[in-house]
Amino acid sequence: MPPVSPLAPERFPDLPPISGARFAATAAGVRYRDRTDVMLALLDPGSTIAGVFTRSATRSAPVLDCQEKLGGDASEGAAILVNSGNSNAFTGAAGTQSVARIAKALAGIADIPEERVFTASTGVIGERLPDDRITAVLDRLAASANADGLADAARAIMTTDTFPKGAAREIETEHGPVRIAGIAKGSGMIAPDMATMLVYIFTDARVAQPLLQEMLSDLTDRTFNCITVDSDTSTSDTLLLAATGHAAEITERGGPFETALHEVMLDLAHQVVRDGEGATKFIEISVTGATDDDDAKKAAFAIANSPLVKTAAAGEDPNWGRIVMAVGKSGAQADRDRLSIAFGDLTVAENGWVSPDYTEADGAAYMKRSELRIGVDLGLAQGSATVWTCDLGHGYVTINADYRS
Amino acid sequence: MPPVSPLAPERFPDLPPISGARFAATAAGVRYRDRTDVMLALLDPGSTIAGVFTRSATRSAPVLDCQEKLGGDASEGAAILVNSGNSNAFTGAAGTQSVARIAKALAGIADIPEERVFTASTGVIGERLPDDRITAVLDRLAASANADGLADAARAIMTTDTFPKGAAREIETEHGPVRIAGIAKGSGMIAPDMATMLVYIFTDARVAQPLLQEMLSDLTDRTFNCITVDSDTSTSDTLLLAATGHAAEITERGGPFETALHEVMLDLAHQVVRDGEGATKFIEISVTGATDDDDAKKAAFAIANSPLVKTAAAGEDPNWGRIVMAVGKSGAQADRDRLSIAFGDLTVAENGWVSPDYTEADGAAYMKRSELRIGVDLGLAQGSATVWTCDLGHGYVTINADYRS
Repeated sequence: MPPVSPLAPERFPDLPPISGARFAATAAGVRYRDRTDVMLALLDPGSTIAGVFTRSATRSAPVLDCQEKLGGDASEGAAILVNSGNSNAFTGAAGTQSVARIAKALAGIADIPEERVFTASTGVIGERLPDDRITAVLDRLAASANADGLADAARAIMTTDTFPKGAAREIETEHGPVRIAGIAKGSGMIAPDMATMLVYIFTDARVAQPLLQEMLSDLTDRTFNCITVDSDTSTSDTLLLAATGHAAEITERGGPFETALHEVMLDLAHQVVRDGEGATKFIEISVTGATDDDDAKKAAFAIANSPLVKTAAAGEDPNWGRIVMAVGKSGAQADRDRLSIAFGDLTVAENGWVSPDYTEADGAAYMKRSELRIGVDLGLAQGSATVWTCDLGHGYVTINADYRS
Repeated sequence: MPPVSPLAPERFPDLPPISGARFAATAAGVRYRDRTDVMLALLDPGSTIAGVFTRSATRSAPVLDCQEKLGGDASEGAAILVNSGNSNAFTGAAGTQSVARIAKALAGIADIPEERVFTASTGVIGERLPDDRITAVLDRLAASANADGLADAARAIMTTDTFPKGAAREIETEHGPVRIAGIAKGSGMIAPDMATMLVYIFTDARVAQPLLQEMLSDLTDRTFNCITVDSDTSTSDTLLLAATGHAAEITERGGPFETALHEVMLDLAHQVVRDGEGATKFIEISVTGATDDDDAKKAAFAIANSPLVKTAAAGEDPNWGRIVMAVGKSGAQADRDRLSIAFGDLTVAENGWVSPDYTEADGAAYMKRSELRIGVDLGLAQGSATVWTCDLGHGYVTINADYRS
């Protein structure tokens, strides 16, 4: 067991019960021993579900199945079933059959249509999913589901995560309180074999599915689509948001519900970065002054994914030349002589050269922090973007290269 | 001094003299002590020069200067002057002035127009180039230039390279023999501060500049633009090809001269990969069956740049799932169920799942080789591409993260 990430939150947050949703976790022995590896969420009739998924061309059987089922009839109940230890990816027709068998069995037990059973799998790739071990525990799982089971579910979906990830918010509306609680696992493609990012968020708000999907897709672009650990994209990334409809109704964009949902998603996204393999630095990269927001994101991700920027951070080296390099290769419009770079509030470079007041000693002192803010202003227009990443150190190589030794 | 790469060629090749070209190297003390750090190439009147350069938006002052000078009048002589230890990149107007001072001084000494002096700088970024140290040695350099100095020049342009890189070919034409000799340094962005790839190739053939440029640009796309060490692009990459015109004239594409030039370029490109930071595996990645060649290159580079594929190679782990992942994220058109993967002659996966005859033991045995061939067939059409890379191990992190310790 690797030690818990030094960037982990102090403790797992209290997750409020979400009326209309019950959770359970158990050990099915899919691959791991002596730990839970299956989670179940049961959702009352009327629950709407929105989702976003990996855009990988080699996405897994459960992902393809979920994508087909989104937006279905919400009048009956729904279920989410997730296993860790095996990703059921690149398993041909057998993988599709496994998904169908699990959905059929759970539909019978939970008395819901098969089309309302959403599954996900995370873990090793290319091995047949032992779905019989999962279907064997479904009775027990369903019987034990309860309103307080979300924290246990967060632990059951971990693979090489070093801590479980949860976040919650509560808002007041004129029709009463609304709660949001979510869990996540992984941090990009981080595991020894093949991991994924899985995120499940639940709310008791009543939100029509198209509105729920619209919010989720937009907020994903500003949260989970703005993080990177190693630039490698999983075949199984799945984010589902379920609204049970037991509390107040949300009918518009931009209100306190969306703000709270944004906060929960950003919190979970940051926790994924904080558990990046071997991470010792949490790094925020803000690019401003770009031609447009897309160009800003392009430059920000070029910096965030640069092995040389990330190894410099691991070595606490204020090597701003590598940031210049990353901007240069990003494809974003940039003018060397308008570029400025800051570490936190420290101006490092401006007007195409090192800042006259900058000293290497100041830069080196800043880099010793465990939370770094890199600011880049391209000086061209008003486009901006912020992304988050971690450093690349020996821990990453040890986990990914030395695994078989 | 890091040890010589285990992938290095057994010895530096014999480079033939190129009639019309003379070379020299010396120690100017730009940054390093006790080693040569400046090289000079003097080219007779009539030499045509072609070049390709980094496309970085933050390219260095010498790169911008070279780009302006390409294609100029070849009736007078020309010179190439390169220093290591300082890249003169992101140095504002001072950088441009340094280039101008060096060009002016060398033009006077070599009796050639300033417009025919091509310079390059490689090393630390953002520090003023001490051009006075360079201009101080130009007299000595020019006086010592000789036909056999190319091997010394190869050593003078090294930064963190662990071996000098050279390659040569000789062909017979109906008008007599034609020779090609070239040198290179670096392997992408590989150095502790900011390195570059620099390549200089010389031939005694007579080739009109537009034809020389056309060949060079096309062959670059199949050689230097097909290698990657860490996906980071330098601000200073420069490749110059000079033809002195002392030997036979080449007037057409596609003949033995172009074949020999291709071989020299590919040889040097492979040597750059073999000297990749911390490299222990030389990896060839061939993608076939793609919708078109561009898609094939996209998929090949996604595999070659994937930190998870590269760390698996370092750990000798036949983790073909990570190759599936990289193809999936590449953006290339792919169909999971038509994809096949091979390690050398070993079929690993086909028809969307692991091959029935493949065993993990066979895969693990293959991965112990120091030269790996990964073949991916997308099964869609006839597009193909081959790229070369190395593994990502602790050596890379040590060089780039631990540098200040």
